[in-house]
Amino acid sequence: MKQHTVTAFDEDLSALASAIATMGGLAEQLVAQSVQALLKSDPELAQQCITADKKIDELERQIEERAITIIARRQPMAQDLREIIAALRIATDLERVADLGKNIARRALAIDAQKFGQRLFVGIEHLSALGLEQMKLVLDSYAARDVAKAREVWAKDDDIDAVYTSLFRELLTYMMEDPRNIGMCTHLLFCAKNIERIGDHATNIAETICYLVTGEPFDEARQSSTTRLTQAEQA
Amino acid sequence: MKQHTVTAFDEDLSALASAIATMGGLAEQLVAQSVQALLKSDPELAQQCITADKKIDELERQIEERAITIIARRQPMAQDLREIIAALRIATDLERVADLGKNIARRALAIDAQKFGQRLFVGIEHLSALGLEQMKLVLDSYAARDVAKAREVWAKDDDIDAVYTSLFRELLTYMMEDPRNIGMCTHLLFCAKNIERIGDHATNIAETICYLVTGEPFDEARQSSTTRLTQAEQA
Repeated sequence: MKQHTVTAFDEDLSALASAIATMGGLAEQLVAQSVQALLKSDPELAQQCITADKKIDELERQIEERAITIIARRQPMAQDLREIIAALRIATDLERVADLGKNIARRALAIDAQKFGQRLFVGIEHLSALGLEQMKLVLDSYAARDVAKAREVWAKDDDIDAVYTSLFRELLTYMMEDPRNIGMCTHLLFCAKNIERIGDHATNIAETICYLVTGEPFDEARQSSTTRLTQAEQA
Repeated sequence: MKQHTVTAFDEDLSALASAIATMGGLAEQLVAQSVQALLKSDPELAQQCITADKKIDELERQIEERAITIIARRQPMAQDLREIIAALRIATDLERVADLGKNIARRALAIDAQKFGQRLFVGIEHLSALGLEQMKLVLDSYAARDVAKAREVWAKDDDIDAVYTSLFRELLTYMMEDPRNIGMCTHLLFCAKNIERIGDHATNIAETICYLVTGEPFDEARQSSTTRLTQAEQA
């Protein structure tokens, strides 16, 4: 009987982890597609992203419900409880990532990139590639419960900040060069900020993985990194 | 013995609600002070906001821990479980509100409002007054479990969006008028967006209160309102 209980519990936990993996894959895809929709001025793809976000919201609710049911039923301790708390936290971050992607998709619908020179978009493309790498790395590290990989995500967040900083300055320059760029570049500034924040959520998830595996609390210095100003913004 | 259990449980729940009220009051104060720090160029006050945010982060962790302990110990059902889930959700929104306030405080440190004409800041002041009213109203509505008040918050979010829309356009105009305004107005655009998002979190909390009191699911149409584009941004 005891054996049975443990097994059912393990199944609960692995179903939860697999729901997180699914949600992560969808969030990653949504971000990639929203950036494509922006760069290629593809309203249909943008619309798909907005629809996909609803599914991700629904998944978050399901994960939350499932996690709470497991806590109430099994009254887990230590490592098992950490599994569930980690799932709740990661689901919140992934929902935010998808939201930020959806916001990019909405901007893709509002603007027409084709009307502007290609050079305005090179930086966004580069930044989003970095952001997506971080998402992939952190999801892999969750799947493998790999703390070393999670720490890599953490370290690489500085690269994203550096690229964002340079892009921020570049976009301001285009605005100063020609007032007709101001509206478009404002959209791109918000898109860039969104991608930088996606990177921050990847870092949050990396921290959650460290906590999950080691039981150590998060590093204070990295907390709430989602509203830091980057170097460019401080200047 | 049963009586005792119920009473201890009630105490658990009311301690949780009171922790949320404390967190809400601190978040509200942080936002008000961060805007003051921006408008009056007060680096000391800005620094206080950044410190206050740490305390709010810590409160969120405590609420999360407390909620999970209650679920594991008491295995609550229906209305009681809704109380706890609502507390978890509201704590997440309040933590985000405080984060957005902290981001305004960081911008207050980065810029010197005194160097620019007063007219650049009138709109931000107005918008933040509206945002703070929403925060106050929604916290009152949580304290009183008042669904009618919560619906008021919901309805008033359109006012914030309208004011944000007009401010957004105004700031773009200042940028086009004089390129020397671009850096400053970019900061103000992000501050305005932060306040608009604080309004969205107030709306999220209002929805959670409706769910808490009525048990009804949220209105689909309002979900993830935090990444909507306003009218100005769509144009």
